[in-house]
Order: sequence, then structure tokens, then C-alpha cells
Amino acid sequence: MITRDSGPQPADFADVRATNLAVVLRHVRTHAPCSRADIAATTGLNKATVSSLVTDLIDRRLVREVGMTENRIGRPAMMLVLDGSPYAAVGLEINTDYLTAVALDLAGVRLLSWRRAFTGAPGQPGQAIASLAALARRAVSKMEREGRQVLGLTVAVPGLVDADGVVELAAGLGWHQVDLRKSLTAALGEPTYPLMVENDANLAVLAEQRLSFTADLVYLTGGASLGAGIICDGRPLRGARGFAGEFGHLPLDPAGPLCTCGRRGCLEAYAGLGALIRAALPDVGIETALSPSEFGPHVDEIHRLAKAGDGQVLAALTDVGRHLGHAVSLLTNLINPACVALGGYFTVLSPWLIPPATAELASRSVAANCGGTRLVASALDSSAAAAGGATRVLDAIDAGVLPPPQTAPSPL
Amino acid sequence: MITRDSGPQPADFADVRATNLAVVLRHVRTHAPCSRADIAATTGLNKATVSSLVTDLIDRRLVREVGMTENRIGRPAMMLVLDGSPYAAVGLEINTDYLTAVALDLAGVRLLSWRRAFTGAPGQPGQAIASLAALARRAVSKMEREGRQVLGLTVAVPGLVDADGVVELAAGLGWHQVDLRKSLTAALGEPTYPLMVENDANLAVLAEQRLSFTADLVYLTGGASLGAGIICDGRPLRGARGFAGEFGHLPLDPAGPLCTCGRRGCLEAYAGLGALIRAALPDVGIETALSPSEFGPHVDEIHRLAKAGDGQVLAALTDVGRHLGHAVSLLTNLINPACVALGGYFTVLSPWLIPPATAELASRSVAANCGGTRLVASALDSSAAAAGGATRVLDAIDAGVLPPPQTAPSPL
Repeated sequence: MITRDSGPQPADFADVRATNLAVVLRHVRTHAPCSRADIAATTGLNKATVSSLVTDLIDRRLVREVGMTENRIGRPAMMLVLDGSPYAAVGLEINTDYLTAVALDLAGVRLLSWRRAFTGAPGQPGQAIASLAALARRAVSKMEREGRQVLGLTVAVPGLVDADGVVELAAGLGWHQVDLRKSLTAALGEPTYPLMVENDANLAVLAEQRLSFTADLVYLTGGASLGAGIICDGRPLRGARGFAGEFGHLPLDPAGPLCTCGRRGCLEAYAGLGALIRAALPDVGIETALSPSEFGPHVDEIHRLAKAGDGQVLAALTDVGRHLGHAVSLLTNLINPACVALGGYFTVLSPWLIPPATAELASRSVAANCGGTRLVASALDSSAAAAGGATRVLDAIDAGVLPPPQTAPSPL
Repeated sequence: MITRDSGPQPADFADVRATNLAVVLRHVRTHAPCSRADIAATTGLNKATVSSLVTDLIDRRLVREVGMTENRIGRPAMMLVLDGSPYAAVGLEINTDYLTAVALDLAGVRLLSWRRAFTGAPGQPGQAIASLAALARRAVSKMEREGRQVLGLTVAVPGLVDADGVVELAAGLGWHQVDLRKSLTAALGEPTYPLMVENDANLAVLAEQRLSFTADLVYLTGGASLGAGIICDGRPLRGARGFAGEFGHLPLDPAGPLCTCGRRGCLEAYAGLGALIRAALPDVGIETALSPSEFGPHVDEIHRLAKAGDGQVLAALTDVGRHLGHAVSLLTNLINPACVALGGYFTVLSPWLIPPATAELASRSVAANCGGTRLVASALDSSAAAAGGATRVLDAIDAGVLPPPQTAPSPL
């Protein structure tokens, strides 16, 4: 629907050209190798227009020619593929126990994927920002040494992030009102590429969507805290102030266990990683606070015991799955996604989580057959949010915000 | 964001013209009376283009000239206003105890607003469809007698409606798998105008948005059943299968009262109209089932007693408000709307509902200050869903789907 405050803007020929450049670029991304005639036939654009658009994309080194093919009906044609060799999109993630960095080329191919242990003291954002800036500098330097221009950098944070890149609240990091975008921009010496800050789940879902092609998709971060990245009708749902997707604190039972947020019966108190570890491995830290750096080995141990059929671990996973299904039923009833992808620790444990979660979802969704919502394991690993940060940079290119020509524009 | 399966489509000059026609039409809607020069100055379109577009809109009788003005700086100019006199958009609603019909002209002015008592037996859709068809025929005939062409008709139903206009489930009506669009199209003798069927809340929120100009808005239907119509970032959120907005069956407490859906502790079991009447007027039907036709007088009585300060009624309203705020906190945490409008019976009782609801929302939203979500009384009355049905027809016009020219196109 087009409404008064979000309706069509005046279209002029520059808009038409930007739209058509994006159309041709996306066609090459999904159909390469392909010829100019293929593009014209599929898009409905006339051949002269396609030629001019392809010339522009070649000048910007976004597309390149790979030689003639004769292995087809009709005349031999010059085939096109994505180039993008001079570009890189960078994403970083900060979490309670690690930092990650991912760089992608224009085709979404990984150029680097780094993970560093991180043990910044909670509530000390200065230390975290210094670590993030160091990692960003190393990633950007590596790209530049390879002759690539960095198109943008996005940082993923497990918390509430407003539209200006201020972290309102990141409970796991002990952050409150941290202007991460401003601080990191300063720490990096005011870089020329765009620097953005975004909630981790909101970014991870962009990376998941590039793999799943689903227009109504939710990605759940599974960790000590739980968040949801939501895409509705092909577009990210951030909410009026950017605070959508606070999945972990959905209240399931007013008489439930105490949550770290001070309320009772939140999903996180049942299905956060701390709750799972305490239920599945009762010898571990039921009295003492768990350190985030111990989470990984504990998940490995739970996975091993689940495969071995350990009764206590299986019961704990079934219980987590049931609560997860309960919370997903709220998503199904309110926003009716086609697919909910389980990320983070949920991914590796999904064989034991999905059956009880799906049963609970089926019993609680108002529409028949879970309203069509499927629960699946995420296709991504723990670099999901950083990959999503880089994907967000690429999405801007796909939408027609192109880097400038690298050679003089062709007279054609 | 533009993604692979929802990205830009090839733009050609017909698209540009349709977009620009919609831009000019929306400008006239919001700024009339205005001149061609005003439109050019605001939209950035050149004057020759604006002249050609205005001529087209005048040929379609969507815009008309109202004479020269000299009451401005510069040369006198021919002023334009919305015309639309030959058109009408029609919306109908079927609910448990009434039918409504609304017709709007292109400027959103009401041409008719009818309400009929309806006491169709539950689970007898044939009877309801005959009543709806009779009301539709009367509304369409009246518009045609006034020389107006009906641009479309949309029917609002309190239930789950799929993309083909099949009512999957409407518990209040006792309907299950009713192909309302097909049956009504047949009953009306295959009309030439488009006929659509949609969930009542999804339509009401369109009408609310035309008044509130909010891009992130939720409209709550307040009746025996409770639904939510959601607009995110200016676009309706229907979900993958069209089943979004099932607000009434959000589970608030697993130990709560039994709901009509068979589950426990749903919002509707606390804040549906039946629950309010039982709590506020305990002499009424606590043992016997309430008839929907009695709801209206009971709401009037509750309103009267609340104004008189009756303790039991005020306590019941506070309790409903608290549960409503609890459920709205799920919306705030998941989709973070800017505004939640209380419709149906909630509207008239909102002075007593909003304070406890807002307090509960504040205590339960993860982001500070309710995440920016405001609770307000709807600006609409019980014709909201029918008005939304007509609005949906107008939205298609605003998006550039124009009726054909009524005169030969001008050579200009």
C-alpha cells in the first residue's frame, strides 16, 4: 500500500536509471554468466538501454565480460559475470565472549572470516571500542592491501540500537547509552566509507535471507541472550525506534523463574544459554555465575551428551524446545513468518529442539498447521551477525546505491 | 532493503508516468487548492510534465480546476482540487451482531454510512452472505443512482482471511473455510469492480492511518474477539499467509482463565468484551452465554457507571487495562510500533483503560519509555473496518492504479 507519508516519490530519469542499473546488476548476480540479450529478454528493457547500463556497470567494475560463447542457439554472445574485484563489504560483531569480522566481495564470497576471544570487562565500553577499532583496522588494511575499496562497515551489537547507532542497552555487555557509531568513527580516524551500528539479530537475518530467499523470515540469536531479526514482505522490520525483535524477554509465565531483567518467566530464563547449561549440566555453575568464555565448551558437551542419548540432557533440550515453540507461537500469531531460523547455540542443537518446539507451536498457533511457519536450523555459523553486517553494505549496492565509476565513463 | 525476491522491477516510461500521476494526485489531495506551479515546485517535476499529468488527471475526472486566484504573490494561477465526483469506494463489515457499509469519495469524504443489526445464526454463512449481498447491492445502487462509478468493494471479516479471500476461521461467526470472495462475487452477479475480503483489523488500521499519518501503527479491535491491524514502516503487515495480528489469543498466563479457543490465559479471556461485562456487571449473564446483540447496551451501562465512579466497574476496567498493557508490551518488544490505537469498545472506555495499560506497558517493555509506543483512543467509530475497506480501494488509486479516462484524452 502507498500511504501519504510513505508514498511514491517523484520519479525522474536519474531514478529510472538507478533502478534499472540495480535490476541489471541483480540479474547478473543471479543468472551469470549471461549476455546482454539475455538481460533484455528477461527484464523487458530494450537492448540499447541494456547495453548502456552494462557499459556503466563495467566502468564501475561491478560487471565484467568473460568472453564469447558459442555453446548456445543463435549468434555467439559476449557473456557477463559479476566483477566487484575492487570492492569489499565489512561486518564486525561484538558479543559477550568474542569478536568476529567478515568481509564479502560483491558476489557474497567471503574474503575473510576472523574470530577473536574477547573478555572485556562488563560496563567498560572504552576497552571494547578499542578492541573493535583494532579489528576493523586490520580487516580494512587487509582489504586495501588486496587492492579493494571498502564500501562500508557495519558493527553488530547484542542489544537495543537506535537509528543513530547509539546502543541504548546491551545487558550482556553491561552497556547503557553508548554512542558506538560516534566513538568508533573517531577511533578509526573518520573513515570515508559509511560506518553503521545495528542490532545483531537484525543483521544476521539479512545474511540468512541471502541464503534462504524467504520474504517473511525471522532469525533467532541463541546465546546467553536471545534476539529476533525480522524480515516481513522482503523488508527488515526495525520498528518506530529500531527496538523491534526483543524476543528474549517475551513473558511466558508470570509465575516463572526470575530473569536477569528483573521480571519473571521471560523466554530467556527458560531457553537462554545459561538456563540450558544449568538444566542440562547441573554440576556446572548452578550456584556461581557462568563466565561467557565457558559457554562454547559447555555447548559442545551438551551436544556430545545429546548424541549419546543422555536422559537429563535430552529432557533439558525438550524443555528448552517447548518454551522456544511457545515463544515462536507469539511470532506466528502476531506477524506470521514463513520461516523461523534457529541461530547461535540453537543451530547445532536443533535436531533435539525443533520437534518439541514444533509440537508446542502447533498447539498454540491460532491458524491451522502452525499458520505455515516452519522452524529450521540456521544455515549460518557464529559469524552470522558479522556476515549480516557485510550483507547490509551489499544490500545498499543491490538497491542501486552504486560506487562511482573507476574509469572515465564510456561515451556509449 | 531491496532483496533478490522483492527487489526493484524494471522501470520503463509507463511506470514513471504512473508513479508521477500518483505523486501529483497525492499532492493535490494533501495541498488543494494548489496550482500547477506549486506542484512543480514541491515535487521537483518540470512544469511541462506537471501540465501533461494534470491534463490526464482532469480527463479521468480525478482533479478539477476551480478558477483563478489572485490572492497570492506572482501571477494569478488556475487552482486545482480533487474531483473524484464520479467515483465511490465501498467497504462492508460483517460482525457478530451488525453489518456496516461505508462509501467514500476520492477525497475520503463519506457518501454513506449504514449500520444494520445482524443476527445470523452462527455457522450459517449462507444466510450471512445473502445479507451482505443485499447490503452491497443497496450501497452500489445508491452510488450508481448518484452517477458514481464504484471503484471497488472490500468486505471486512473478524477472522483469519487468506490471500484469496477465503475465511479460514472466524470463531465469533462460527465460520470455518468459507470462500466468501467467491460466494459474494456470485451472489452479486460477477460485478466488474474488484471485490476483496480482508481481516477487519487489517482494514481498520488503514482508515486509522489516513487520520493519524503514523508509519508504525497498530489498531486494536475491541469486541467479543480482539484483533490487531499492523502497519510497519508505512506498509500493512499481513504475514506470509495473511494470518498476522491474532492479538486476542496471545497467552498471558498459563494458569489463567479458560478462553473460548480452548487454551488458558489468552488476552481475550481477560479483556474481550464478554470478560469485561462479566467482571463489571456481575448480575449479567455470568452463568448464561451473552448474546452479541446485548453487547452495545452493556457497554453503554459500563460507560455510565464508570463516569459515576462505580467501584466495581472501575476495578474491572483497571484490570482489563492492565492485561491490555501486558499484551501491548509484546507488540512493543516484537515490532515496536509508534502508536497503538484502541478501537471498538476500547475507544469509549479508553479514559479508564489507557492509564493502567500504559503503566503495565512501561514496566514490561525492554526499551525505556515504552520503547516510544503511545496508547491512544482510535479516532474511528464502529464503522472503522468498513471505512478501512473503502480506504483500501482508495489506496490502490493513490498507488497509481487509476480508473480509465472518462473523456477522450486531451491532445495536450
